Amino acid sequence: MANINDVAKLAKVSRGTVSNYINGVKIKKDSAIRVQKAIDTLHYVPNQAARTLKNQDSDLIAFILPTIWTPFFAELTYYVQLELQKNNYKMLLCNSQNDYNLELDYIKMAMEQKVKGIITITYSDITPYITSDLPIVSIERYLNEKVPFVTSDNFGGGQLAAKELTQRGARKLLMVVRHLPDNLGITERINGFVDYCQHKKVDYDVHLDKGNSEDFSTRLEQFLLEAYKNDCRYDGIFAATDRYAEYIYHSFKKLNWTIPDDVQLIGFDGAKSFSSQHLFISTIIQDVEKIAKLSVTELLRIAMTKPDCPQQKNIIPVTFGEFTTTKHI
Amino acid sequence: MANINDVAKLAKVSRGTVSNYINGVKIKKDSAIRVQKAIDTLHYVPNQAARTLKNQDSDLIAFILPTIWTPFFAELTYYVQLELQKNNYKMLLCNSQNDYNLELDYIKMAMEQKVKGIITITYSDITPYITSDLPIVSIERYLNEKVPFVTSDNFGGGQLAAKELTQRGARKLLMVVRHLPDNLGITERINGFVDYCQHKKVDYDVHLDKGNSEDFSTRLEQFLLEAYKNDCRYDGIFAATDRYAEYIYHSFKKLNWTIPDDVQLIGFDGAKSFSSQHLFISTIIQDVEKIAKLSVTELLRIAMTKPDCPQQKNIIPVTFGEFTTTKHI
Repeated sequence: MANINDVAKLAKVSRGTVSNYINGVKIKKDSAIRVQKAIDTLHYVPNQAARTLKNQDSDLIAFILPTIWTPFFAELTYYVQLELQKNNYKMLLCNSQNDYNLELDYIKMAMEQKVKGIITITYSDITPYITSDLPIVSIERYLNEKVPFVTSDNFGGGQLAAKELTQRGARKLLMVVRHLPDNLGITERINGFVDYCQHKKVDYDVHLDKGNSEDFSTRLEQFLLEAYKNDCRYDGIFAATDRYAEYIYHSFKKLNWTIPDDVQLIGFDGAKSFSSQHLFISTIIQDVEKIAKLSVTELLRIAMTKPDCPQQKNIIPVTFGEFTTTKHI
Repeated sequence: MANINDVAKLAKVSRGTVSNYINGVKIKKDSAIRVQKAIDTLHYVPNQAARTLKNQDSDLIAFILPTIWTPFFAELTYYVQLELQKNNYKMLLCNSQNDYNLELDYIKMAMEQKVKGIITITYSDITPYITSDLPIVSIERYLNEKVPFVTSDNFGGGQLAAKELTQRGARKLLMVVRHLPDNLGITERINGFVDYCQHKKVDYDVHLDKGNSEDFSTRLEQFLLEAYKNDCRYDGIFAATDRYAEYIYHSFKKLNWTIPDDVQLIGFDGAKSFSSQHLFISTIIQDVEKIAKLSVTELLRIAMTKPDCPQQKNIIPVTFGEFTTTKHI
């Protein structure tokens, strides 16, 4: 493959002139024409690493998230990448698997690679490791006042779920959630749900599971079988995520209770497994595309301007998606 | 932030010595101890771009695929990243959105970034743009004899679907597929299905849709409504992907035909939207984890050894997953 010396030789300029041209430093017009012609003739591919070193900057953005393997995270990654691509940035994908040390490794790696910035969904407190040199945007978790923060209105979503169930005739509500003290989004969903029920004097319970993630569906099924084998009075269930709602939906297939006639069910996320999927569980829909776009916009804005003032919180409204597990009104 | 000069000064060695140490070039033992101590004291983060330039090599792998946003691709990406991480490589995620020019842009970008290699799922002929300098592994599409190739046994999967439907009592089979002439995996599934039916003298049709992806579910529903509104004799359907099977499943809800009693249904992929998901459509399961692991292993092998001999084709067996849309036998 041709190198920079070959280009310089063919264009009859110095190596430095070619280097300047590639790095966007102005050179004489006739030299520029000769250099470009030589680049084209030789199919010369400039070395990005050299340019990065020279500019102390790159076109990489690190996207750190717990996993790619849920509909919500897959859809979010899809839109973040699309938005980066429009702005000529590339995504370094970092799945932290909810491992705090791996998250820190990725942040360190991002600094080493001289990435332009980081977009992260973390459930750990990474604030001690954030330096002011590195632009960062946090989705769902508020880190500190300097870090732009993009989140759905989880509190409002919890209220909305309780409201929609009540308006559709449910009289005794149940919220199903796994205990994740570091997941502020989930906590806010509980707070919103409880807030609505208390203010509107709706009868409710919160089933807070404290076990591990792997066996949650099994434990949840056991809980539902116990609760519903006698004359259970819960007629409206709010699951903290669509995944939990799917567990509940499948458990009810084994019981003599029908959805939505006996029990109505609302999940949370509204993300699809693929863009043309038909959702069937009624849910509180997060605007995934907007979260993605705003995160990229915020990151590029602070990367350009390096502001020193407090960053705004971007709280994005959620909506109710009526599918097959709630009654029509 | 500390730079390399600060480290050299504190360690009382030259800048070159620090550079050698960071790049794994052997230096005197007592110098090495002092350099490491200075790095720790100053929280110095070496600049990856500089190391890349020096070594003309990086720890980045570009993963080019049409989209991240399907269960199959999300699961595949998850496992590829996990495997890269175990080997201390990072993933540059490139969604080509099935756009040939974007694929070529990504390949060019990968060469510029001096990535260690590329893993790609492409439905275009990118062979003219592959150089022997850049290790590449292709999933699903055979490129040429120098490029290692990892794929599921799509032909065997098509045969297996026809066999499982027939063994469960289906007498008139239908395969549903969208026309994708460049997608060799899909083509092989059709070939396998037809091969089984012809050899075993099973009555069959192939419904080959030639429209665009966006409206396929609508057209497919129209086709099924027409076919089944009279006394349709198809009692076993093989959908070329789980996504198509999901479309069919939802269309049947609108018809007076029950699954699996009147019509049995088998999809293809078996990928989950999240690791604990319960699949409900019977399907031909691809071993996604194995495809991911083998692709990474093959890439690292050729990146290390730069072999000049023909590369092997890795064809990975598929299995039948019996869920709710086929009869027990």
